[in-house]
Amino acid sequence: MVTRTVDLRSDTVTKPTEAMRAAMASADVDDDVLSGDPTAQRFEEEVARIMGKEAAVFVPSGTMGNLISVLVHCEVRGSEVILGDNSHIHIYENGGISSIGGVHPRTVKNNPDGTMDIDRIEAAIRHPDGALYYPTTRLICLENTHANCGGRCISAEYTDRVGELARKHGLKLHIDGARIFNASAALGVPVHRLVRAADSVSVCLSKGLGAPVGSVIVGTKDFITKARRLRKTLGGGMRQIGVLCAAAYVALQDNVVKLEDDHRKAKIFADGLKEIKQLRVDSSSVETNMVFFNINESSMISPISLCEALEKFGVLAMPASSTSVRVVIHYQISESDVHYALTSIKQAIQEILAVGTTK
Amino acid sequence: MVTRTVDLRSDTVTKPTEAMRAAMASADVDDDVLSGDPTAQRFEEEVARIMGKEAAVFVPSGTMGNLISVLVHCEVRGSEVILGDNSHIHIYENGGISSIGGVHPRTVKNNPDGTMDIDRIEAAIRHPDGALYYPTTRLICLENTHANCGGRCISAEYTDRVGELARKHGLKLHIDGARIFNASAALGVPVHRLVRAADSVSVCLSKGLGAPVGSVIVGTKDFITKARRLRKTLGGGMRQIGVLCAAAYVALQDNVVKLEDDHRKAKIFADGLKEIKQLRVDSSSVETNMVFFNINESSMISPISLCEALEKFGVLAMPASSTSVRVVIHYQISESDVHYALTSIKQAIQEILAVGTTK
Amino acid sequence: MVTRTVDLRSDTVTKPTEAMRAAMASADVDDDVLSGDPTAQRFEEEVARIMGKEAAVFVPSGTMGNLISVLVHCEVRGSEVILGDNSHIHIYENGGISSIGGVHPRTVKNNPDGTMDIDRIEAAIRHPDGALYYPTTRLICLENTHANCGGRCISAEYTDRVGELARKHGLKLHIDGARIFNASAALGVPVHRLVRAADSVSVCLSKGLGAPVGSVIVGTKDFITKARRLRKTLGGGMRQIGVLCAAAYVALQDNVVKLEDDHRKAKIFADGLKEIKQLRVDSSSVETNMVFFNINESSMISPISLCEALEKFGVLAMPASSTSVRVVIHYQISESDVHYALTSIKQAIQEILAVGTTK
Amino acid sequence: MVTRTVDLRSDTVTKPTEAMRAAMASADVDDDVLSGDPTAQRFEEEVARIMGKEAAVFVPSGTMGNLISVLVHCEVRGSEVILGDNSHIHIYENGGISSIGGVHPRTVKNNPDGTMDIDRIEAAIRHPDGALYYPTTRLICLENTHANCGGRCISAEYTDRVGELARKHGLKLHIDGARIFNASAALGVPVHRLVRAADSVSVCLSKGLGAPVGSVIVGTKDFITKARRLRKTLGGGMRQIGVLCAAAYVALQDNVVKLEDDHRKAKIFADGLKEIKQLRVDSSSVETNMVFFNINESSMISPISLCEALEKFGVLAMPASSTSVRVVIHYQISESDVHYALTSIKQAIQEILAVGTTK
Repeated sequence: MVTRTVDLRSDTVTKPTEAMRAAMASADVDDDVLSGDPTAQRFEEEVARIMGKEAAVFVPSGTMGNLISVLVHCEVRGSEVILGDNSHIHIYENGGISSIGGVHPRTVKNNPDGTMDIDRIEAAIRHPDGALYYPTTRLICLENTHANCGGRCISAEYTDRVGELARKHGLKLHIDGARIFNASAALGVPVHRLVRAADSVSVCLSKGLGAPVGSVIVGTKDFITKARRLRKTLGGGMRQIGVLCAAAYVALQDNVVKLEDDHRKAKIFADGLKEIKQLRVDSSSVETNMVFFNINESSMISPISLCEALEKFGVLAMPASSTSVRVVIHYQISESDVHYALTSIKQAIQEILAVGTTK
Repeated sequence: MVTRTVDLRSDTVTKPTEAMRAAMASADVDDDVLSGDPTAQRFEEEVARIMGKEAAVFVPSGTMGNLISVLVHCEVRGSEVILGDNSHIHIYENGGISSIGGVHPRTVKNNPDGTMDIDRIEAAIRHPDGALYYPTTRLICLENTHANCGGRCISAEYTDRVGELARKHGLKLHIDGARIFNASAALGVPVHRLVRAADSVSVCLSKGLGAPVGSVIVGTKDFITKARRLRKTLGGGMRQIGVLCAAAYVALQDNVVKLEDDHRKAKIFADGLKEIKQLRVDSSSVETNMVFFNINESSMISPISLCEALEKFGVLAMPASSTSVRVVIHYQISESDVHYALTSIKQAIQEILAVGTTK
Repeated sequence: MVTRTVDLRSDTVTKPTEAMRAAMASADVDDDVLSGDPTAQRFEEEVARIMGKEAAVFVPSGTMGNLISVLVHCEVRGSEVILGDNSHIHIYENGGISSIGGVHPRTVKNNPDGTMDIDRIEAAIRHPDGALYYPTTRLICLENTHANCGGRCISAEYTDRVGELARKHGLKLHIDGARIFNASAALGVPVHRLVRAADSVSVCLSKGLGAPVGSVIVGTKDFITKARRLRKTLGGGMRQIGVLCAAAYVALQDNVVKLEDDHRKAKIFADGLKEIKQLRVDSSSVETNMVFFNINESSMISPISLCEALEKFGVLAMPASSTSVRVVIHYQISESDVHYALTSIKQAIQEILAVGTTK
Repeated sequence: MVTRTVDLRSDTVTKPTEAMRAAMASADVDDDVLSGDPTAQRFEEEVARIMGKEAAVFVPSGTMGNLISVLVHCEVRGSEVILGDNSHIHIYENGGISSIGGVHPRTVKNNPDGTMDIDRIEAAIRHPDGALYYPTTRLICLENTHANCGGRCISAEYTDRVGELARKHGLKLHIDGARIFNASAALGVPVHRLVRAADSVSVCLSKGLGAPVGSVIVGTKDFITKARRLRKTLGGGMRQIGVLCAAAYVALQDNVVKLEDDHRKAKIFADGLKEIKQLRVDSSSVETNMVFFNINESSMISPISLCEALEKFGVLAMPASSTSVRVVIHYQISESDVHYALTSIKQAIQEILAVGTTK
């Protein structure tokens, strides 16, 4: 009978702390749609300050943060956005920028480190005064850290170069910064420096930072004014959101400092995986709180069967492809949990191999 | 120096009670996107039961509730929805069903009581096998209570007739039930009876019921499955929403019973207004918690100037048109507040008249 | 056995004349998408000149002309257009401005003469700096002549007033001028004067003017540049369109002068109908080439049964509602055809009444 | 002074023949929107027969043919289409499937021969019962011949395999067959065999076939019924289109047989280019009427400067990239024109090199 649960599926599973719950219980609130919620306003100002941008707006989710950002930059019909072929916006957000916003995505190959070659981005740009049969490129999107590329960090220098390219061509730059604080912690560079070249950034509060609900977008005052209106259109305008912003404020204050330790634990996890002969992991690519590992084909074990076997130990993980598994560390995973998970993986593999070899 | 505030702008200004805050602080939560939040699930089941529908889903706002409902029923390109020309969806939701969903609205005149003539609705229906140049009607929307028609209640019998019409023509019926519990209290009819003919209903939790955030949509299981996916597309998929659902659950348990008293206070308000000679109010049309009153043109007082003058007394209200003002009662407005507001209105009018007569 | 056909369903049924066919056969053409078709260019310049606008572009249909015009003026997401509740764009164009363009329509009641009350238009305007929950009005549409209002003409003075209103609020004015040349002929006012206040006009060439295919949009150079690009997006960019423009050029030269005579014949038709006791027609409202007539309910004859009965005489007409029939005159309908049609209507009614009275 | 013009920019520049013009001048026509044009109907039946499909509909352009096809197959909001990253629909049609239709494109790498690896297509498919955050794949698009891949032909066998994959996953298959008759001629396989596995095909009539205007879509009767309605929505419903269909009918009868000779001339062109030392051309990849050639970097001649220099000789061609030029042969280019163009290219290069070497 398992009583221990080690949930490594995502850092979105973090649960609110006592401090967050207390903050929710005592938050000063008002109707944020009618005239502004005081706690939300303070929170938004603080995030804008930290990110080095003029203004900020709280949104229900990272998906809405990205959707609003892309749609505000691409408010004119016939816009095209350049983004990574492996980016979260392109792969995991229901194609909303097209189905909801009519924005045409033009993908550029993501390198294994999450970047796109600058010259490939430039080659993909299409101008408003271009041919009659081209949409108009209006936006470039980066993702930092890049989830599908293993949580790799995008450097300030690379971001600056993309920003220069964008300005040269009259384009905007949006950063999907769902885990930008992880990048900041791993690179040792302040977040405002990482996003200096960006016109907008969406930041998730309910991943590694541990807030129960919400993301925030930052940008110029004009951008945020438009974002607020679009938030209302999409149905993301909420009333007494001080209760959520109070918790998010605690997340920001208490948990940003813990991210570095999450990365350390992820390294331990990766190092531990290397010692399991049926698995392969490139620990040098483990830069933040994500660990992707491959199962050797010769072992005849599928990611789905491994994850199912692990569930019996109370260890939850997700298949990432037909040959790999993704594990995400967060501050509610202890070093002991990491070791328990590693031991469980070893045992699960033994059990699968003992039972049979059908993949 | 005013210290008292009587906020009559809307019932959305209600602030969470201690019980709600306590519930938020102790809610059992999990990642609602990944695998479901237990408190959200219990709450959704309870709302579905009360509304007499198969399933329910929590959404960040009433606007999203309506948007998702219309878009799920109108999932095929080229759909048309029939709705009141004075309905909230048509007037106050940014035109999102068109700008976001590509759904074409066809309005039918709202009668003063919030209904639309059945034969006018029928005349507006356009069939899929119709002429080449018609969109296809797929949905009829009602609003109960009808905000822009003074919070009037739509009867179960009328709703049934519209439902029959919808079924006869293969259409769906959606009810914007932002204040459906007010209608239920005023009519003395259970909500499930009021919405029996509907394929979907959106219900607001953060108006008269007082929850800090959220609405809920109910319908068939299939409808709700599609609604969940569209909620994710729009960015309304949130993580540990148990914190919000716990408060909403308290709202449902504690505050539904208070609505009748809100209506009683609204009547008192309306009766008091009748005694102010510069104002006109048809108190027989005050069926729920809303009071609309007109300022006599001969008084040369505009709604904007009256509302500004009232603000100095700490009484907040909103102009409803160039000649009328809207007042909304909720359970955080006491009978004493009502009398204070009435007195303030009288004084404000006297002050305006004393200063001058420029409108 | 009927050999004569009098097609009164619409002026769209006009067939190309020998002169048009000869023009098509000898037109100088080139690839209009790649580098411009010379005949198209000459034709567009001529139409722009006649309409008193900077530039023009040929499009496959009036529907595309209106769709492109609305979408260019409303190129920013979240736009609203004010148009008549009985307008062609709102009723007969598949709701394309919403389903294809995401533009939210806000209807204002059409008076019987095709106008909308100026103060009702003004009351419907919603500003970009308005409330968070309003779409932004960007365009007003008029229709001249107004088909659903019986082909009534909109005066230059009324149009000017709407234009002033539009400019006052920073809006654009589009005229659906499918039959603007009919209005010009009936009012004795040059078309350029009728559309002076408009930012764009769509003009149909294949209705009373008799060209086989096409409409044209006029406006500023910048507007037409955007229109060309959107035409390409919609699939309206065609190659050697000189063949169509050559025919349209003939239509413009030969047939504009015939419209006055069409109106005279329509008057004869209306006067003839008045003498049929089962019918009612307000001949004073017959201003151009359309005649709508009502069938007295006491006659128990439905429009559908009358039109079916007429078909046996080779007379084609269309029901306009459950009690009325629409007849459209064009230059390929002779005065003799009008008398034949009137006689046929009388006979058809007699035959129906003889057979029975089931409606 | 040049008097000779050899227009090699595209096969869209073909001008209507005397036979086509005569057909236009004598075509039997009627209002195709109201009740069908007889010439259009005969033409559509004939194309459907040739393509081996149930029904067909004439449209103003290939872009509209593709747009309608994609939108009919993806009529439900939230659809995704899989198509080549180098396909005409993705690159050259203004992103209309997204901006107009809200369809999310998911690109798969085009191989140099215009195909996509079957396993890559399969890996890109996302199912309706899939994760909450995926759009639903509903369509795969192929292009035959593949313009951006040099006019390469897609075999019947490959198409069959993609069709099987589509059916296995409940998807539809659309073929952008703008130049499908070229593929048929080059492969020696009837067109109906080439498109047997497809649910819809768009075929261009105004490219190598030489009709002045138009494309046609084929598919099931139900598909074509929906396509007609969407054609009307987009503004592609035209009146007396018999004039265009008559010309297109001649194009089909007279010019399909000439395509093989176009391919022969393209081979001569390619062979001639190989003898120019500054150029490189892989003549084995010249399968139809397109020739792409590269300019050696060492020559310091840019495609733009070469095309400009050629213009002085009356030879028109288009740069295809920063290092290559595209030439398209059609039946109005004689073998003598080919030799003149080759000689002109040689002379133009000599002139550029004589003047200087700045690229």
